Formats: sequence, structure tokens, C-alpha cells
Amino acid sequence: MSFISERSATVAPFRVMKILGAAHKRDDALVLCVGQPATSAPTPVIRSAHHWLDAHTLGYTPTLGIPELRQKIAEYHNANPDNVVVTTGSSGAFVALFLAVLDPGDTIVMTRPGYPAYRNTLAALGAHIIDLPCGPDTRFQPTVDKLAHIQPTPRAVIVTSPDNPTGTIIDLEELRRIAGWCEEVGCLLISDEIYHGISYGRPCASARDYSHRAVTVGSLSKYFSMTGWRLGWLIVPDDLVEPLENLEANLALCPPAISQYAALEAFTPESRVELDAHVADYARARDVLLQELPSMGLGNFAPPDGGFYLYIDISHLTDDSEQWCDQLLHDTGVAIAPGVDFDPIDGHKYVRVSFCVSLETIRAACDRLRQWLG
Amino acid sequence: MSFISERSATVAPFRVMKILGAAHKRDDALVLCVGQPATSAPTPVIRSAHHWLDAHTLGYTPTLGIPELRQKIAEYHNANPDNVVVTTGSSGAFVALFLAVLDPGDTIVMTRPGYPAYRNTLAALGAHIIDLPCGPDTRFQPTVDKLAHIQPTPRAVIVTSPDNPTGTIIDLEELRRIAGWCEEVGCLLISDEIYHGISYGRPCASARDYSHRAVTVGSLSKYFSMTGWRLGWLIVPDDLVEPLENLEANLALCPPAISQYAALEAFTPESRVELDAHVADYARARDVLLQELPSMGLGNFAPPDGGFYLYIDISHLTDDSEQWCDQLLHDTGVAIAPGVDFDPIDGHKYVRVSFCVSLETIRAACDRLRQWLG
Repeated sequence: MSFISERSATVAPFRVMKILGAAHKRDDALVLCVGQPATSAPTPVIRSAHHWLDAHTLGYTPTLGIPELRQKIAEYHNANPDNVVVTTGSSGAFVALFLAVLDPGDTIVMTRPGYPAYRNTLAALGAHIIDLPCGPDTRFQPTVDKLAHIQPTPRAVIVTSPDNPTGTIIDLEELRRIAGWCEEVGCLLISDEIYHGISYGRPCASARDYSHRAVTVGSLSKYFSMTGWRLGWLIVPDDLVEPLENLEANLALCPPAISQYAALEAFTPESRVELDAHVADYARARDVLLQELPSMGLGNFAPPDGGFYLYIDISHLTDDSEQWCDQLLHDTGVAIAPGVDFDPIDGHKYVRVSFCVSLETIRAACDRLRQWLG
Repeated sequence: MSFISERSATVAPFRVMKILGAAHKRDDALVLCVGQPATSAPTPVIRSAHHWLDAHTLGYTPTLGIPELRQKIAEYHNANPDNVVVTTGSSGAFVALFLAVLDPGDTIVMTRPGYPAYRNTLAALGAHIIDLPCGPDTRFQPTVDKLAHIQPTPRAVIVTSPDNPTGTIIDLEELRRIAGWCEEVGCLLISDEIYHGISYGRPCASARDYSHRAVTVGSLSKYFSMTGWRLGWLIVPDDLVEPLENLEANLALCPPAISQYAALEAFTPESRVELDAHVADYARARDVLLQELPSMGLGNFAPPDGGFYLYIDISHLTDDSEQWCDQLLHDTGVAIAPGVDFDPIDGHKYVRVSFCVSLETIRAACDRLRQWLG
């Protein structure tokens, strides 16, 4: 007798996990397949965590997060602290938000390629997902033209900028148009901004700059280099705060206490200096890739505006990106992610390279890749 | 335009939160309304957390938890580490488990009174909840006789022992019978054992002692005194591990890293000595209440076998436990929880007193209560 639900059977494993597992078994692996910064939390956060470990019982906190942290996050986003919902990573934010705003069968639009946890979480919660194919012509980002063709009007749309897996930043005028269209037709704009703070010249804005009906999703994982601390947040319109609080009291009780207290130091000038130095490192790693990859015949990638990924078209080399990544790892120890995790239709033509690693790792990976490609 | 989903609108706020909020505004409050131990994590855990803060990047961990912790939890439960799924508190465990085993409309049985997060989470996820009224005649616990009357056979049943809110431990022979019945009729037995380790003489067993098809839910929050660390676990049959891993990779990514590393020290003899001393403190607090409450006319409570709650019938004093608790707090500063959170039908006749607080808090609360009741 098995008790596996049908809805859980629809959630496929990430292919990258198999690659990551195989990489971890090799001494010579160069891991460029995950969005895990090589760095730890900023020094002031670590120092503060030491303090709170001894100074506090670290019991349950308020469900919405400690008021001091809601205040810091509000200042960071130029928002009202009452509209901040602290969550257990952006993962926890999406689960709670999707339950708060979507009933089974409600339609929600996500880009293809796109972050696979949206798809899997939404499917598990019974939402009707509409894939919006987005390619080079729209910089892999949605447009009002594309959205307006969807009938009937979807209940919600997710915009991710800087994007995962492509790294593109949405054009600000297009974001403004989407925000206006969403207000006009009554569609909830969900703006995943967890890669904010990591960009390379192209301007990046929050959806909330254009619409106070938009929901912003944030996180300490990427720019703040605190993945394992599991802290994220939502900034939501007034009427969504109470439903989210009621849901989170059951789904999570509260976000991790030590992460919340220590995170108060993540927003200080001292931490920002340290974090901005990481971004400068990402920029140097990106420069190496932008110089090296095209000369290996891997120059067809999405505009690398922000975040720390390159999404590369390898259709001239293979029509099976998963097999290609397996072989690359097997032959060279270089681990990158197959596009099939991000795009069930066209992902077999793409790979994602993550460059939040040291410069020497990037250089060594380029050397091995060049030799392998001959 | 509002985007609140119908399913989230069914999740009512916990009434106890209002009382807790009001209590926090008073300097003289005695907080006996929540399951928050007054103590922090054991000293070896704190010491270890200091170590890992400096020794580790604290990035993402494996989704199922770090292997060393899965091993420790397996040893604690006499299970195989491959069957251990580490989660973000038992809250995270229940969300993932319910999605893994229940499709919308599937029936699941919970006792009434019972832990309200089961009800709210299950409702949000579309399960069909069957309330099993359980009173003094069955020690507020389910029986095969009661379960066998439910037609058609439910897909799953939750047994909570020691129980919240009642504190009762299920009779071991009855647990054995339920486990056998579940196997016989093909019903999943979910055993919430997060209060294990806190009992006062009555024997307490794991459902897994009687059925390897049962799912155990555990947590570091109660006996281990680590609520804010947000660490729980599931012990599941082989075939549920992969669906849970796939779900959790989307719902959570991984449990908090520092909590996992530090928790390796929670199971050591040194920690257990400290934690067992807390249980001895709970026993002393319980003794005071068992002596004091009956002489105030508050002697009609569920058998207080384990955990740290007393569930008291106050129907001779009021038929509105929420108003009664509000008034008690207003007049005396003593905060206890109204039964309506735990039982939507009969909860207006009950209150829950939490005694995981200091002995002086318990004594002061008894003094004020006695005076108030006249």
C-alpha cells in the first residue's frame, strides 16, 4: 500500500541535483551549477549572531517577524514596516503567497525559461500555470503585448528581475507598462526581486516603484550571501498582511529566530561594503566568462545584466543538455546546470552557468571547458 | 481589487495570539498561554553554534538535511537514517507530508480537541477533515472503535501523544490496535510525537514501535527547548522519502543550516542531563497546579500524562472561554489559552494552561487566579 499523492507525483526532481551529487563525489570538481555564493554572511552578521546566541532564549518570534527586522527591511525597500512579512527564505514566501492569493484552478503566468520552484510549488497547490515563452526578442522577459494575449485574464503574473536562469533585467519602461496593465485588468503582479543588488550597469527597479498593488519577494540569500540562514520576505498591500499572518501561523509559526536577530546587521554600511565587494568579484568572474566563452563557441547567451548566471544556447552542440552536462562533468569535473530544469520545452538546448564562485574556479573551469570543446 | 484567496479566508487567526499580544503590553503579565519553554537550547548546542558560525559558510544544505543530523535523529528513534527527512520545524514537516500523501478531497481524521495548525493547514491544502470528538471516556484520544465507524475509510489519521491541548498519552494497547487497524484497512497513521520526552510516569511509545508503515513527526522545539531554531523531522516509509525530497526542494530548499549543525549536540548525554532537568521543572510546576487548581474549583481536567499543558473544563463558570480568558488577563495579568482554538464546537467550555514556565510564575499565577475566582 502506497500513500503517495498524485499532486506530489507531478513534482519532478531537479536534474541539477544529480549533477551536484556526482560533483560532490569528485575531489577535482568545479561547481558552477548552483546559486550558492562561495562567501558566508557578512562579518557584522556573524558577530551579531554570536551575541544573540548568548543574550537571548531564541524562542518563537512573532509570526510576521521581529518588529526591528520588519523595520530594517522596510527601510531597505522604502516601504511601510506594516507591509513587511518576514518568511523562511523566499521559498517560504512563495508557498504562503500562492496560498494567500490563489485558489485551485486559478491561473498564474510565469516565464519559460523560469525558476522551477514556482512551477512545482504552484502545481502542488493546484494552480493553473500558464507558460509565457520568452526568448531573445524580449530579453527573456515578459511584455504587456505577450500578457494581453492571454485569455481570460490571469489572476497573477510573476516577473523575475534579475532573472533566474537568464540573468536579464527587465526594461524599466516595460516593467512600468506591465505594472499599469496589471492594475488596469486586475491581475496581481508578483515581483521576484531576490537577485536585486547584483547587477552590472543596467538599471534595475522594484515593481513597487510602479504599483503599490504589486507584491515584492525578497531574500537574504543572494546579495546578502546568507542562503542557509533561510530568511526572506514579502512586501504586500495592506489587505494581504492579515491573511498571510494567519497562514504563516500554521505553515511556519515563525522564521528562524537567530537568523532574524543577526540579520539586523545585514543592512549596515559595514555589511554593505563587504557585500558590494562580493558583487565586484561576481563582476570580475562575469568579465572572464564574457571574454572566454564566445571564443569557445559559447557566445550565444541571454543578456547578462544581473544576478550570477549565464544562460547559454548550446543547440549547435547538442539537443540533450542534460546528457551534455553529465558528459562534461564526467570528462572534466566541471558542473553546470542543464536548461531542462528551467524550461520543459526548449531547455534541452540550453545550459546555465553560475559564476558566484572564486575567480580561480572560473578560470580553471574555462581552461577545462576550452580543452574539452577542442 | 482584492486578491485574497477563498482558501486563505478559511484560516482563522488563533485567538490566543490576541491574548498573547495583550499580555506583552503589560509589565505584570504571567504568560501561561503558549508552548514556549522558558529555557534556551542546551549549553552544548549553543557552544556548538558558536563554533559553526566561524567554521562554516552556512550555505544551503542537502534538502533532506545534513547526513550527520539524519544519523543522530535515526539513532534517537531507532530508525534508518535513509528514512529521516529533516524539516523546518514540525510545521514544515506537516505541510510537506500533507502534500506528499493527500490529494484535494482526501479524508484525514484528527481529534477534537486537537492542534489547530493541522486543521488550518489541511484546509488550505484542500483536504477533507473529519473531526473525531474525543472526551474523557477515551482519555481524549482516538480508538479503533471510533475510527472504524468512519465511512468510507479515511486516507489518514493523526494521533498526537502526548497531546496538545490535553496532555494525554494514548494507551499503548490502543495505539497498537490503531496501528494494526491502519495497516489492515489501508489508512496512513501519522503520529505527532513532538512532545515525546516530556511525561510524568505513564508509558509513552512511538507509533513506529507498532507499525513500520506509520509516519512519525518529531521536533527540537519542546523536549529539546529549541522552538526558534525551527527544526523538526519526519520518519517515513521508504517510498515516501523521494516524494518528500522533491517537494521540499521547492517548498523549503533546506532547513536552517546553523540549526542543523548545532543540533548535532542536542542528543549528547550532556545535553540530555540539562533537558531532563527541564522536565523535572515541568513536573514540579505540574505538581503545584494539580494541588492548587482543584481547590479553586478547576479540577476537571484531562489526564495530565505528558507535555506541558492542562486542558480544563470550565463549563460551570462560563460558556465563553475566550471572553473568560480576556477577562482573566484584564483583571489579573494571567494569560491562558481559550479552548476555542483547539475545538470549534466545545472549546467554549475549556481553557488550556501551559506550565513550561518557572515555578514562581506558576505560584504567582495560582495566587492571582485563586483571588480572582474568590
